[in-house]
Amino acid sequence: MIFVGERINTGFKDIRQAVTDKDPKPLQDWAKKQAEAGATYLDVNLGAVSTKPEDMCWMIETVQEAVDTPISIDTNKPAILAEAVKVCKKPPLINSSTAAPEKMEAFLPVVAECEGSIIGLAMDAGGTPKTADARVEKAGMFIATAMEQGIPPERIFLDPIVMPLKFMQEQAQEILEAARQFTLFSDPAPHIICGLSNVSNGTTHKKLINRTFLTMLINNGCDAAICDVLDTDLVQAAKTAELVMNREIYADSYV
Amino acid sequence: MIFVGERINTGFKDIRQAVTDKDPKPLQDWAKKQAEAGATYLDVNLGAVSTKPEDMCWMIETVQEAVDTPISIDTNKPAILAEAVKVCKKPPLINSSTAAPEKMEAFLPVVAECEGSIIGLAMDAGGTPKTADARVEKAGMFIATAMEQGIPPERIFLDPIVMPLKFMQEQAQEILEAARQFTLFSDPAPHIICGLSNVSNGTTHKKLINRTFLTMLINNGCDAAICDVLDTDLVQAAKTAELVMNREIYADSYV
Repeated sequence: MIFVGERINTGFKDIRQAVTDKDPKPLQDWAKKQAEAGATYLDVNLGAVSTKPEDMCWMIETVQEAVDTPISIDTNKPAILAEAVKVCKKPPLINSSTAAPEKMEAFLPVVAECEGSIIGLAMDAGGTPKTADARVEKAGMFIATAMEQGIPPERIFLDPIVMPLKFMQEQAQEILEAARQFTLFSDPAPHIICGLSNVSNGTTHKKLINRTFLTMLINNGCDAAICDVLDTDLVQAAKTAELVMNREIYADSYV
Repeated sequence: MIFVGERINTGFKDIRQAVTDKDPKPLQDWAKKQAEAGATYLDVNLGAVSTKPEDMCWMIETVQEAVDTPISIDTNKPAILAEAVKVCKKPPLINSSTAAPEKMEAFLPVVAECEGSIIGLAMDAGGTPKTADARVEKAGMFIATAMEQGIPPERIFLDPIVMPLKFMQEQAQEILEAARQFTLFSDPAPHIICGLSNVSNGTTHKKLINRTFLTMLINNGCDAAICDVLDTDLVQAAKTAELVMNREIYADSYV
C-alpha cells in the first residue's frame, strides 16, 4: 500500500499559521510523525495561503530537512509546480492533473521531465462525473495521454474522486465500480489512489467510514491513499486487505 | 445484513458440557446475548456430541424458550434435520446442503415443505473447489436445482466456502470472485453467506482479519454471515459497508 500523508496542508490551522510565520517546527513535526507511521509520500499543500512558488518551495525544503520521505506536490497551479519540482530531492508524486487538455499539457511534460509520478483525477473541465462510466472515460483519456508522453503506468495514479457518503450516498458505488474498471486499462495496471477523508465529511463516525471504504476500494484494485497515516486502525485495515488481495505474504506479525 | 449467531455450537466447550448435562442455562444465556446483539438467526449445532435427533430438538426448544429469534439448523444429517424442522416455531435457515445430488435430494424437499431457507455450499462430493469458476459451477447447480423445486432466490443462501487466510492465502481472491459472480445468478439475487470465522483460523489478529474480509465480501455482494455477533467492531464494519453499498440510508446514528 502506498500511503500519502495528508497532514502538511494549510487547510489545517497549525500548518497555515506555520507557513504564515515561516515557522518550520509544525511542518517538521508532522513530517517526522507521518514518516514514522509509514508514509510513502508526504503531501505538501500550500492551499490559498499564498500564490507564491517560493512559499511552496519553503514548505518542501523544510520537510526535506526533517525526513527523506518523497514529497507529494499538492497544487493545481503550473507556476507553483514548475518551481516545486526543482527543490524535490527525490522524484515527487504530483497531485494532481485532471483529464482536461490544458491541464494535461501543463502537467504531463513536467512529470516526464522530473521522472516523477502523477495523480490523474477522473474528471475534466466539466466537473466531477456522476457515473462510473464517465469516470472511466475521463481516466482513460488521462492514462492514454500520459502513456503517449512516455510516462509508464507504474508512475500513473488514477483517482476516481471520492465523494461524501453522507451527502451523496449513491456515489460510493460509482466510485468503487470506476476503480475496478481502472485496473483494466493497462498491464501492469496503473496505481489507483483516493483522497480518502472526503468520504466521511460531515459524519459522526469518520474513522470507521474511512477504513471501511478504503477496505472496499482496495478490494476493487486501489493501492494508494491520501489519508491520515496516524490512524492506526486505518493502516491495519489496509494492510489486512492487502493480505486478502495476496499482495503481501501472510505472517502473524504483519501488523 | 443477515447475522447468524455462531455461538450455540458444541464445538465450544461450555455448550458441549451443557448438552451433555441437559443444562439449559448456557444455551439460553448465549441465545439472549446474541439476540440482543442483533442476530437475525441463531445457529444451533449439535456437532459430534450425539447423533440423536432428540438432542438437537432439545437444543432448539431450549433456545426457543429464551428468545423468539429464528433458528439456523446446523446439521448435515437428514435424519436430524427431519426432526429438527418440526420443533422450529418460525421458518428456519437450514445449514447446509452441498450441490451433490444425494444431498440436494435429502435437503431441498424439507426446505420447500417447511418454507424455510437453505444454505448451499459451493461444493459437491468432490470436496471444496480451488477456483472461483469451480465454485460458481457448483453454486449454479445448487441454485438451479433449488429453484426448480420451487424455492425462490430470497430463500437461497449461497456460500462460497471461506478458507483460512494463513494457510491458503491465494484462496481469498477465489472466494471473493465467486461471491461477485453469485450475484448474477438470479434477479433478485440469491443471498450470499459466509462462515466467516474460518478465514482467521490460526492467526494472531483474528477480529481484524474477520472484519476486513467480511467488508470485502460485502463489497462483492455478500449480505449474510455466520459469525460472532457480539464482536461490535465486526458488526459496525458490516453496517458501514452496507451504507457504502447503498442498502441502508445514511443516518449519523447508524451504529
